Amino acid sequence: MSKLYVALTHYPVVNKSGAVIASAVTNLDLHDIARVAKTYGVPTFYVVTPLADQQELARKIICHWTSGVGARYNPARRRALELVRIEASIKAVVADIADREKGSPHIVVTCAKRIKGSIGYATLRAMLRNGRPHLLVFGTAWGLASDFIAEADCVLEPVAGNSDYNHLSVRSAAAIILDRLLGTADETD
Amino acid sequence: MSKLYVALTHYPVVNKSGAVIASAVTNLDLHDIARVAKTYGVPTFYVVTPLADQQELARKIICHWTSGVGARYNPARRRALELVRIEASIKAVVADIADREKGSPHIVVTCAKRIKGSIGYATLRAMLRNGRPHLLVFGTAWGLASDFIAEADCVLEPVAGNSDYNHLSVRSAAAIILDRLLGTADETD
Repeated sequence: MSKLYVALTHYPVVNKSGAVIASAVTNLDLHDIARVAKTYGVPTFYVVTPLADQQELARKIICHWTSGVGARYNPARRRALELVRIEASIKAVVADIADREKGSPHIVVTCAKRIKGSIGYATLRAMLRNGRPHLLVFGTAWGLASDFIAEADCVLEPVAGNSDYNHLSVRSAAAIILDRLLGTADETD
Repeated sequence: MSKLYVALTHYPVVNKSGAVIASAVTNLDLHDIARVAKTYGVPTFYVVTPLADQQELARKIICHWTSGVGARYNPARRRALELVRIEASIKAVVADIADREKGSPHIVVTCAKRIKGSIGYATLRAMLRNGRPHLLVFGTAWGLASDFIAEADCVLEPVAGNSDYNHLSVRSAAAIILDRLLGTADETD
């Protein structure tokens, strides 16, 4: 199992106008990213929101699939959603990882815009092999707030396809980025 | 622009029990896969369903974002959803591509299970460079029906992460697969 932890945060993120907000939890973000995390051996997928009602919503969704009717209906979904842990802040996430790993994680943030000094995928793959825990942070809404990005240990370069369009959903970006960082070459022919 | 066309089909797919069904259209499938398709230069993203009410639902969603209020609210989303074309069958999709490209596409299907004779990502990347149009087909629900898979020109091997878990959403699978097939090496450091 890798030591790459993943967090999806709902604060501090920006809205369409650039104001810092706390966004709402989206059901399919939890499902899709938990399933990707399980596929790539991520130890824990943190869902971060400071809002009590949004924590409660996330908890209800997860409980339905891990111990409610959903767990019996779809055991594969249960295995994915068991990876989710709800926290109030990234600080709490870092404390949780530090407690498990006996050392603080290196914090890597994602951003759809290219930021000076960002690191590439091969570089981060190599860093992950050094054994230190890493926390990869994804933002919801219109992305992570710039002050938050500035405080991170490093910024991962954006996913560039082969066009000028850079408006992936966070679900799609998380899938592509985890495949690039943790995927194994998969060529049988 | 690539000649890799993408279709998301709602028939013929199987349900949890393995019966062949026509599944319902899911709003976020259209958004997420259209945005990925736009990012990677896919010329058209076909949404396939034989059900008139589901075609109408898909049309309403798309119109909201391409000519309705959504088009003004979020022009980036408009650019993605303009790639969507609704068709009643894969046969109709193939005819549409043949008409545009003056030649039938090579049909490649995706499947979460490993199927004998499936081709790998490097092989399909090489095939795409030969200039012939290709149609990559994704199934909804519990995946494409086996008879449909058997009739395709070839089957793409499943996305393997680094675990035994192979239950990605079709949204995540489409994102990873298009990145593997059309992504450019993106290492700046």
